[in-house]
Amino acid sequence: MLALAAAPLGVNTLVVDSAADACAGQVAPLRLADWTDYAALEKFAAEVDVVTFDFENVPAESAHWLAERVAVFPDPRALAVAQDRLAEKTLFRECGLQTPAFQAVDTREDLDRALATIGAPAILKTRRLGYDGKGQFRIKQRSDADAAWAALGANAHGLILEAFVPFERELSVLAVRTRDGDFRIWPLTQNWHTDGVLSLSLAPAPEVGALQSRAEALARTLAEHLGYVGVFALELFVKDGALLGNEMAPRVHNSGHWTIEGAVTSQFENHVRAVLGLPLGSTAARGCSAMFNWIGELPDAAPVLNAVDGHWHDYGKQSRPGRKVGHATVCANDAKALATRIDTIAKALQRDEQAAPALRALAK
Amino acid sequence: MLALAAAPLGVNTLVVDSAADACAGQVAPLRLADWTDYAALEKFAAEVDVVTFDFENVPAESAHWLAERVAVFPDPRALAVAQDRLAEKTLFRECGLQTPAFQAVDTREDLDRALATIGAPAILKTRRLGYDGKGQFRIKQRSDADAAWAALGANAHGLILEAFVPFERELSVLAVRTRDGDFRIWPLTQNWHTDGVLSLSLAPAPEVGALQSRAEALARTLAEHLGYVGVFALELFVKDGALLGNEMAPRVHNSGHWTIEGAVTSQFENHVRAVLGLPLGSTAARGCSAMFNWIGELPDAAPVLNAVDGHWHDYGKQSRPGRKVGHATVCANDAKALATRIDTIAKALQRDEQAAPALRALAK
Repeated sequence: MLALAAAPLGVNTLVVDSAADACAGQVAPLRLADWTDYAALEKFAAEVDVVTFDFENVPAESAHWLAERVAVFPDPRALAVAQDRLAEKTLFRECGLQTPAFQAVDTREDLDRALATIGAPAILKTRRLGYDGKGQFRIKQRSDADAAWAALGANAHGLILEAFVPFERELSVLAVRTRDGDFRIWPLTQNWHTDGVLSLSLAPAPEVGALQSRAEALARTLAEHLGYVGVFALELFVKDGALLGNEMAPRVHNSGHWTIEGAVTSQFENHVRAVLGLPLGSTAARGCSAMFNWIGELPDAAPVLNAVDGHWHDYGKQSRPGRKVGHATVCANDAKALATRIDTIAKALQRDEQAAPALRALAK
Repeated sequence: MLALAAAPLGVNTLVVDSAADACAGQVAPLRLADWTDYAALEKFAAEVDVVTFDFENVPAESAHWLAERVAVFPDPRALAVAQDRLAEKTLFRECGLQTPAFQAVDTREDLDRALATIGAPAILKTRRLGYDGKGQFRIKQRSDADAAWAALGANAHGLILEAFVPFERELSVLAVRTRDGDFRIWPLTQNWHTDGVLSLSLAPAPEVGALQSRAEALARTLAEHLGYVGVFALELFVKDGALLGNEMAPRVHNSGHWTIEGAVTSQFENHVRAVLGLPLGSTAARGCSAMFNWIGELPDAAPVLNAVDGHWHDYGKQSRPGRKVGHATVCANDAKALATRIDTIAKALQRDEQAAPALRALAK
């Protein structure tokens, strides 16, 4: 989707990926190489003007190494912070964003100590290389500690115990910052997850009130602290009306896919503009949008293609359980029309469960 | 732009072109071959499910040949008709669309006879392989006949003399029809040309009143007559409030480029949907849009990127006098806001002349 947004800007994209079926390879030349293959990275660096990434588990060391040879945006520091939940949450607090209680866990004894402080329920997570609910263990009661340790204790990069927050809603802020500090956010997005994976997004998130400006201020502080250039997402919980920081994704984000049709400028285009030093486009929403994520396999496209303002996105990936293989966005001028369209699509695809929380939110 | 629209639909595009720098090759694999290289076409046919084209001078014979081996949409008949101005105008009249007076010209004597009937001013055109004002000679007075004949008389495919119509405005209708006969048009577009090449488009064309439904009926008649599948454009003159047919383009059309951002579904996506047998998307406009064509070379992108709802399209082509190398679309919710944005861009790029007629039309 980045390469598709880059093309009209006259930007040629070159992709490095270790998977021969990397989806960007469908629309841009692909150099097949591991991200730790420095000989390949050397050649790659010589061929491009600017490097960016759309996956937060690109090795930060490789990004640092590239940054010594060619412009890399965002700064690999952001990657390093986002790859370590402990560093990430510490940064959030430094920037004034509250978080669920958390504590580093390196040993079995640390886990007991952390549970004593934080209490149960809590979530034990790997500090590194987790996303979409991977590398997490939910501790419902303190007696689950052994099972949690058995599941994740062998992780070489350390763990973190986080308080389980019975949040009211999940929001994300998509933000973009240019090389010279121009900063914008899109309207807040409300998200629902199933089994840890994003299932449905609604934008603009209904009834956010002052949370929009609060999220903007926090995202700006974070971006400025990191000297961030490009798009990033901040996943937030709303608890008792206040924002808590969950995760930062130093890249274009699944919860911003609605911006392709639902905003004046998409997250993909603004990311390309930002990393190339071009002016940003407007982040205003066009009406309201809902995004269905397709996990594992694609449903029938017809109900989406038949919807007024329904848009289909097939990533051209092989089906595989838990894999994000596509999404659909449906837009409308107002919440009522959007609810009708969501409902029609969900019924046709027997996805009522996926759509239900968004329909409840729209009905408020 | 077709390949870019195809990708999210999960459609892999394969391109055949004789130019190594064909722009589609930037985002899709390119088979370098002449369109009359039947060995290459044979291989191509074996690799694809559906063939389409975005250039009306693809040899109709090649399209026919391919149609015997693989599904080709639109039917190559449409290509054959559109490639011959005489057949095209004859068809227009059969379908109830009036045209400027015209007459076939095969000899020098034919030209005199035609001039005697039609009168001057008139335009002598090659029947085949003309577009963007190429293969045309404007006869201002009957004494220009010799010069016109000297310029075009050697053309092997015959000529046509057309009355010069001092039209009030130029409109185009972009239409799309599916395999099972679903038919839609986008709002009429108003166009201005410079040296025979499209310079600026405005959509929806202001104050068209009943012309919208009249154009829709005519386009539908034509499409049904041809069993047309896909997008086509009908270039129209308005004279004394009535529509006259100028040309049909059996393909996505330059005057429809605004639909990428300015319509719910772009001409490119609906063409792909139609030729693949998928349902059509809505052709409604989102607010109003203007498209600047960039001819010869690209201007500075910054004024467009800085415009609210300004969108840049660089085709990645080498600069060359007269060549279409890109376009920009600017959108707004209403005509007044659009006029302001057009004016700001035009002033920044010193393109006041290019923008002036659209600004006059919007000010009415």
